[in-house]
Amino acid sequence: MDRRSSGEFELIERLKRFQNLSRRVIKGIGDDAAVLELDAKRYQLFTTDMCVESVHFTRKMPARKIGWKAMAVNVSDIAAMGGEPTCAVVSIGFPGSTPERVLPPAAPFPPRGSLARSSERGPASGVTRSGLPVGYVEKLYQGLFDCAKAFGVSIVGGDTVRADRLVINVALLGEVWKKDLVLRSGAKVGEGIFVTGSLGGSFRSGRHLTFRPRLKEAQWLVKNARPSSMMDLSDGLAGDLGHILKASRVGALLEEQAIPLHRGVSLDRALSEGEDFELLFTAPLPRAERLKDRAIRIGTVTEQRGFWMRGADGKKRKITMKGFAHF
Amino acid sequence: MDRRSSGEFELIERLKRFQNLSRRVIKGIGDDAAVLELDAKRYQLFTTDMCVESVHFTRKMPARKIGWKAMAVNVSDIAAMGGEPTCAVVSIGFPGSTPERVLPPAAPFPPRGSLARSSERGPASGVTRSGLPVGYVEKLYQGLFDCAKAFGVSIVGGDTVRADRLVINVALLGEVWKKDLVLRSGAKVGEGIFVTGSLGGSFRSGRHLTFRPRLKEAQWLVKNARPSSMMDLSDGLAGDLGHILKASRVGALLEEQAIPLHRGVSLDRALSEGEDFELLFTAPLPRAERLKDRAIRIGTVTEQRGFWMRGADGKKRKITMKGFAHF
Repeated sequence: MDRRSSGEFELIERLKRFQNLSRRVIKGIGDDAAVLELDAKRYQLFTTDMCVESVHFTRKMPARKIGWKAMAVNVSDIAAMGGEPTCAVVSIGFPGSTPERVLPPAAPFPPRGSLARSSERGPASGVTRSGLPVGYVEKLYQGLFDCAKAFGVSIVGGDTVRADRLVINVALLGEVWKKDLVLRSGAKVGEGIFVTGSLGGSFRSGRHLTFRPRLKEAQWLVKNARPSSMMDLSDGLAGDLGHILKASRVGALLEEQAIPLHRGVSLDRALSEGEDFELLFTAPLPRAERLKDRAIRIGTVTEQRGFWMRGADGKKRKITMKGFAHF
Repeated sequence: MDRRSSGEFELIERLKRFQNLSRRVIKGIGDDAAVLELDAKRYQLFTTDMCVESVHFTRKMPARKIGWKAMAVNVSDIAAMGGEPTCAVVSIGFPGSTPERVLPPAAPFPPRGSLARSSERGPASGVTRSGLPVGYVEKLYQGLFDCAKAFGVSIVGGDTVRADRLVINVALLGEVWKKDLVLRSGAKVGEGIFVTGSLGGSFRSGRHLTFRPRLKEAQWLVKNARPSSMMDLSDGLAGDLGHILKASRVGALLEEQAIPLHRGVSLDRALSEGEDFELLFTAPLPRAERLKDRAIRIGTVTEQRGFWMRGADGKKRKITMKGFAHF
């Protein structure tokens, strides 16, 4: 649920004040997942992400990958807190045939006719009454369950409704050992800044649909490198690093030549594009030696506020803390 | 998350088989909320509901009421399990101006410009770049927070994205004492069937936007009448009672004259319309005396399967177990 643009928004501040923060809420709005008291040794994590047709995917993309992505973005949020996912509920809005009527809310589950036709005619012949290709719904669910299974998530419930366009919302619970919890706010001056893999070109390459959330990597990190701050890269390096710097009240100096880029991607796109879903984290330098080839150091946390980039020529340029303008 | 039509759907059965049921999942898909192991005395409850513009509401309806409803339908699910709500995450898809482009996923939070314009011009003048009237977003959130506050819910996180039409998804956690948990599957032959209030006409009257979830009533019931089965009436009495009968493997005989109807509503509409959000429950008759005026007895659980209605003339008619056909 970190996927919003990097500016400071008045409404977020208002929402924070609105929160009825009982003692069980350790961290509410403003990190990859909410942190709730669970028991003596564990916190519960709670996150949600909505994927909308023609914004996050098109219907031409494989339904199974769309389902995978809808679950994976949530798993990535839990991983970035140092936790492991447990249970999810999934809401799906299916395109319906009479969108203008205000009707009682439930759509059949699945849209009536899709399974019957699927078995009568075989997959991929014709479309359902809802306008979705036959077999599409099953593949969407298959992708959701593939990803859930791969990362130990139980899908325990959901809601299905009619909608103009396909909408998928996943809400995911997780758990984290209290000693392992990593927020965005712990970066300290002098620490290294790291990423777990190459950046940029996620949309063009299709990686945004097939990425594997860095759950195993995050678990290794919290047990071994003990990051002081961490998040997943969903809005682009510039915007997301901005979140950590702001939450931690520090600045950063990045080394241009150290930033790992996917083939054919410019530095500018790596800074501003989203959905890399690699981990971005900070850690004290002595611990960085343990990282070996598990993460790439891209810079240093500085006392001077703001976000600076040192080029190959040794000159520093100031970078705006805005990621890609999403709207 | 009980709001689906009452037929048996092959996919639900498939999903049930799909579930990675670890020991922490007590009850997955198929009740008002999922039931998860929490500690020695408590279960955690987890539910979700999606509300879509032009399906569940229109933009002409007051934004504050739409926000209220989006939270209230979830609170109602938790109440119907005998539990109390705790924390929610809220996803909102806001209508955007460039819906055809597949962009990185996050929309600003709120849509860029809405608050700035709001403060420049005052509320209700013009529209935001996203196509939403100025002040609309704030009122929507206000409704969500009004309902959250009224029922002790902390909104701890969320997601905001672009969408063609307004979409609101709430995922809600709750807790229930193990001894208080009420599923749909506990109805026994000879027990009474009860509802907590009058039925029908929820859409026409606007009650579906302003209803108060029966949380207090459900809490009283689990402490005093100890219902054997319970759910909230979201799909209409016929469909919802069908869920209980199927889950409990019993039948029902209702007394036509006992069913409480809102003024001007026919019995048929009360059976088939949805979104009453009263509680439907079964309880042993000796305990029913404690209910007094807190619930109305409308029938009896029978060994004979199926759903029968006894009219004023004493004749029994068989009722189909389908609620309103939603699609």
